[in-house]
Amino acid sequence: MNERIVWIRNNLKSQNIQGMIISNPVNIKYLINIDAEGILLLTLKENIFITDDRYIESVKRVLTIDDEIIVTSFRDLSYEDYENYFLFCENVGFEENYVTYATYKEIMHRYKINNLVETEGIIEKQRQIKDEEEISYIRKACEITDDCFSYLLKYIKKGMTEKQIANEIENFFKEHGASGTSFPTIVASGENSSMPHAVPTDRKIQSGDVITIDMGCVYNGYCSDMTRTIFVDFAQEYMKKVYNLVLKNQMIVTSEIREGANTKTLSKIVEGNFKMNDYDLVHALGHGVGLEVHEGPILSSKNEKLLKAKMVITNEPGIYIPGEYGIRIEDTILVHENDAEVLTKSSKNYCILN
Amino acid sequence: MNERIVWIRNNLKSQNIQGMIISNPVNIKYLINIDAEGILLLTLKENIFITDDRYIESVKRVLTIDDEIIVTSFRDLSYEDYENYFLFCENVGFEENYVTYATYKEIMHRYKINNLVETEGIIEKQRQIKDEEEISYIRKACEITDDCFSYLLKYIKKGMTEKQIANEIENFFKEHGASGTSFPTIVASGENSSMPHAVPTDRKIQSGDVITIDMGCVYNGYCSDMTRTIFVDFAQEYMKKVYNLVLKNQMIVTSEIREGANTKTLSKIVEGNFKMNDYDLVHALGHGVGLEVHEGPILSSKNEKLLKAKMVITNEPGIYIPGEYGIRIEDTILVHENDAEVLTKSSKNYCILN
Repeated sequence: MNERIVWIRNNLKSQNIQGMIISNPVNIKYLINIDAEGILLLTLKENIFITDDRYIESVKRVLTIDDEIIVTSFRDLSYEDYENYFLFCENVGFEENYVTYATYKEIMHRYKINNLVETEGIIEKQRQIKDEEEISYIRKACEITDDCFSYLLKYIKKGMTEKQIANEIENFFKEHGASGTSFPTIVASGENSSMPHAVPTDRKIQSGDVITIDMGCVYNGYCSDMTRTIFVDFAQEYMKKVYNLVLKNQMIVTSEIREGANTKTLSKIVEGNFKMNDYDLVHALGHGVGLEVHEGPILSSKNEKLLKAKMVITNEPGIYIPGEYGIRIEDTILVHENDAEVLTKSSKNYCILN
Repeated sequence: MNERIVWIRNNLKSQNIQGMIISNPVNIKYLINIDAEGILLLTLKENIFITDDRYIESVKRVLTIDDEIIVTSFRDLSYEDYENYFLFCENVGFEENYVTYATYKEIMHRYKINNLVETEGIIEKQRQIKDEEEISYIRKACEITDDCFSYLLKYIKKGMTEKQIANEIENFFKEHGASGTSFPTIVASGENSSMPHAVPTDRKIQSGDVITIDMGCVYNGYCSDMTRTIFVDFAQEYMKKVYNLVLKNQMIVTSEIREGANTKTLSKIVEGNFKMNDYDLVHALGHGVGLEVHEGPILSSKNEKLLKAKMVITNEPGIYIPGEYGIRIEDTILVHENDAEVLTKSSKNYCILN
C-alpha cells in the first residue's frame, strides 16, 4: 500500500477511528497523487476512490497495482453500497475543515455512519512537514521564481503597465517549466502598492515609483511565493527608511526561524519593532507553502505554534501607507533543526531601476 | 441601499429570517461588488462588511455612501460585538452549501445565535437569473472567446504542443480585454482528447489528430465557456460519424432550450440518442455560467429543474472512446422565454486544419 495511506491508517487506528471519508482534493492529491474530482474512502480493509466516469481513464493511468486503490464510478454505486462501506466501523472520520455543513448532513444520511467524527486537520497537519521529494519541487519552484525576478530587472521599463509585467511573469513561468502561477501575480506600482492585495492595473510605471511584485509558480504541484519591492529611477529618503525597517525585520525573523521557534513570538517581534516606529503589521507575518500556496502553519500573533523541521513557510513583513505606497519583502523558507534555509534567493538590497 | 441587498432582505423577511451571515466570496461579490476576503452580515438594521486591515482601503474605494454598508476590521471587534450583532433575531440564516462544518460550529459559538438556519442557496438561486448588465458582460466574454477561436484556426500548426496552444489562448484573452481564463484551458489532441478533463501536455499536434479545445475567459467578473473539436489534415469516417452525432444532439438540445424546458428531459434526449448508437453521455449535459464558470442550474438526468428566462447555461454533449479520441461541442446559451440565444457563435461545421 502507498506509504501515506499506511501512515494515515495507523494514525486513525491509534485514535480508534476505523474509517475515513476524504473529500478535499488537495488531500487526495497528497495521499494518492490523483488530481481528479472524487472521494477517497478508507474503509476497514479497502481504499476506494469514487469518481466520475469522466476521470476513470486518467485516474487509472496514474495509479499502479501497488497503490491498492479500487477505482469506481459514482454511477455504479447503489444506496446499499454506500451503506455497506462503513458497516463495521465504530467511528468514521471526516474533514470538518473542508466539508460543508450541507455535505456533512448528506454524508450522515448516505453512509448511515454511527459516529462521524472530526479529524482535526490530520492530513493538513502532516502536509506541513515536507519530505525530500516535496522539498525538491518547492526548491525548483523557487529557483524558477528567482530566475524570473532576475529577468524582470532587465525587462521592466517605464511606460509599461502593471498588467503587462504580470503577464510577462506568467509567461516566463510557463516557459521555464512551471505549470503556472501559484496565485494571481501582484504587480503594484506607485500608490497602488499601498494595498497588500492589489490587482495589476493599466497604470504605467513611472519615475519615482515603488513597485511591489508578489509572485510564485507551481512546479510539479508545489508552490513558491516571493515578494520584492523595487524603485524606479530614485528612492525617496522616507521610503528608504521604511524599506530598511521592513528588511531589517524580515532578516531578524529569518535568523530566528528554526525547529521550536514560536510563531506568535516571531510575529510579536515584528509588531513591536513596527509599533516603535508608528507602523502596524496589518497582515499575518507568513504562512506554510506546499501543494497550496497558503497552508498551515499561519505565522501570526493570534496563532501560537512551534515550527518544526521540514516545514516550508513564508516570512513577509510589510508596511503600507494608505493612498501613498507600500513595501513588502517576502521569502519562502525551509525550516531546519537549527536554522532557516532561504529558498528564494533574489537579492533584497535596494534595487533602483533606470 | 443597493438593490440586491434590498432584494435579499425582503426575501429573508418573508421566511421569518431576521439576519444573515454571508461568507461565500462570490455571493459577496454579487451582492456588494467587493472582491476582498471578509464576511457580510445583514443584521436587523445594518449591513456590515467585516474584513482584514489589508483590504479596508481597497474596499472603501469601491463602496459608495448609497451602498449603506459599514466596513469594519476583524481586529477592531470584541467578543461582545459579535454577540450583539444578532441579539434581537429569532432566526439567522447562513450558507450551508459554503460554510464548512468547522466554521458552522464556530459561528454558533461566536455569535451566540438562537437559531442558525439553512437558506437553501437563496443567493445562488438568484444569481442564476441574470440582469442586463450581467448578460452584457457574459456576451462580451463570449465575443472574446469567439475571436480567440477564429485566431486559433490560423495560429495552430502541426508540431506545436498542446501547452503552447493553451498559452496562446490565455495570452489572447488577456490582450483582448479579459482578466484571464474562466478555468484552466483544455487543449487535448489525438488520444488525449478521449479524456473530458485532459490537461494540456507537451504532445505535438500531428496529421490526423482530433483536437478538443475547451476554453473560456472572464470579462468584468463574468465567464464564458465554449468547446470546439477540430481535425488536422483529414477526419476519419468513423470520427465524422461521431462528430455528426454529437453535433446533431447539441443542436437538438439548443432548439429545445427555452423558459420551462426540463433539464432532466433535455439530458434524457441526448442519453437516449447516444445509447441507440452504443455510446454513453458520461458527464452532465451542461451547467449555469455567470460569476462562476460552473454554477446552477446543472443540466443532468439526475437533476430535474425547469429553465427560466435570463439563465445562462452551457450545452455540451460529448462522446469519448477511451485511449482513442473524444468529441465535445459546447456553447454558452442565454435562455429566453420562447427560445435560446447562442452567445458563442463560432462555427460548428467540420473544421479541418492544414
